[in-house]
Amino acid sequence: MKTLSTSKSHGGVQGVYSHVSQACACDMTFAVFVPPQAANGPCPVVWYLSGLTCTHQNVMDKGEYRRMAAELGLIVVCPDTSPRGDSVPDEKDNWQFGSGAGFYLDATEAPYAANYRMQSYVTEELPALIAANFPADMSRQSIFGHSMGGHGALTIALKHPDRFKSCSAFAPIVRPMTADWSRNAFEKYLGADTAPWRAYDACALIEDGARFAEFLVDQGESDGFLRDGLRPWLLEEACTAAGIPLTLRMQPGYDHSYFFISTFMDDHLAWHAARLAQ
Amino acid sequence: MKTLSTSKSHGGVQGVYSHVSQACACDMTFAVFVPPQAANGPCPVVWYLSGLTCTHQNVMDKGEYRRMAAELGLIVVCPDTSPRGDSVPDEKDNWQFGSGAGFYLDATEAPYAANYRMQSYVTEELPALIAANFPADMSRQSIFGHSMGGHGALTIALKHPDRFKSCSAFAPIVRPMTADWSRNAFEKYLGADTAPWRAYDACALIEDGARFAEFLVDQGESDGFLRDGLRPWLLEEACTAAGIPLTLRMQPGYDHSYFFISTFMDDHLAWHAARLAQ
Repeated sequence: MKTLSTSKSHGGVQGVYSHVSQACACDMTFAVFVPPQAANGPCPVVWYLSGLTCTHQNVMDKGEYRRMAAELGLIVVCPDTSPRGDSVPDEKDNWQFGSGAGFYLDATEAPYAANYRMQSYVTEELPALIAANFPADMSRQSIFGHSMGGHGALTIALKHPDRFKSCSAFAPIVRPMTADWSRNAFEKYLGADTAPWRAYDACALIEDGARFAEFLVDQGESDGFLRDGLRPWLLEEACTAAGIPLTLRMQPGYDHSYFFISTFMDDHLAWHAARLAQ
Repeated sequence: MKTLSTSKSHGGVQGVYSHVSQACACDMTFAVFVPPQAANGPCPVVWYLSGLTCTHQNVMDKGEYRRMAAELGLIVVCPDTSPRGDSVPDEKDNWQFGSGAGFYLDATEAPYAANYRMQSYVTEELPALIAANFPADMSRQSIFGHSMGGHGALTIALKHPDRFKSCSAFAPIVRPMTADWSRNAFEKYLGADTAPWRAYDACALIEDGARFAEFLVDQGESDGFLRDGLRPWLLEEACTAAGIPLTLRMQPGYDHSYFFISTFMDDHLAWHAARLAQ
């Protein structure tokens, strides 16, 4: 692991690191905030998964999570959203596929299967690296994310209900199998047979029996992607049918941007901290 | 004035606007946050002046001012740092001069005098635009900034002690006349005679009799520009000699970045709000 930069912030340290990823067969970069409480012992870990087109840096710059994470004593890990590099297949002009659009799945189709293994990266390789290199209490983890990263958080929590104490999302893609901006990517990564897609779709996972303690979702009512891409009412239907408590907060006037995310960041971190303390 | 974008954030509105500037003879872009309290009447205005290489956008993205500004009911105005455009003379490879490096002065030397009039822009033209287009209580204004923008805030406050209720700075250039990264720019903008430079140097202004009620300055001790560019002890000497109360807080471990600025943003906004309420 290489340290690319560290800066003191809110009494803690915001760092950016890179390493050679086995899962993605390329160099991967990620950001970690370590709060001041880490001086006194391991701290719980909150994973933040970002949306389409983002790297680790967008939420690090614009998510405004450090003040509250420092107050609550939370490590915040922000992975990249896909493999990257000259050797990684990509479609340069397509923001919904390839670089910046890994969808937190393990691709099975050539030529993508060699690199696009973000599920393994985020759930196995990077956690091991965090555990080995940071003052992290890996017995206390939570996960959240935005848009494509909200999809990632929900699906990963549903597949690891014992690992994560809590899960929340900002404007998540709750049903990527049938959303315009993700269906094509799923087909390229996973093939034309939609049966394996269900392992990467929060609503389908719930329909197929996956469970999680509860979810918190904030969704801006002025989000331009609300009706075609996000459709949180589908998650609400799935959760209601499955008996999963969902706190879905429709937020009037808010769009899909980091102005929205940063507004509700404190609420989400406090939600996670309360559950991590139990 | 054109509205380039608006987003709801922390209950208020973060907007980006442009207009044809008479002072700078080019289009200028700026950011304004209007807090939710503006629904009930005009709000006080806090000016944030940015540092070298920045536009209005850096602090809008990374300054983390909206949460506290929304809580305190403050309008936050973030101007650009220089004129820009194909018709504006510039030195493309010099980050300490030209675009992004207006130093909040009115240039007198050709070919810069036609556009580089940031003092007039920030103290006359833009305030008039703000007063005309936003729910601003112009009888209650404060000013702060970072690095070159800290220099701007200090010098403008010293020249307008009755306009601004308070002034603070993050890592300001307190003595630009003799700092390596500003001396060359001053010569190109203002000519070889250093006498007129004194009107744009906080320490010199104080030496020459300018006064302000009090200053708050935060400075990171791990700031790479501390010893050669910033030198807050020179401001301390000038303030001590002049009897101007200065709260200079040396912050161990902090660098020159927005990680530093955002850490102390709440403190500065609260400092201004307390004085704006008097």
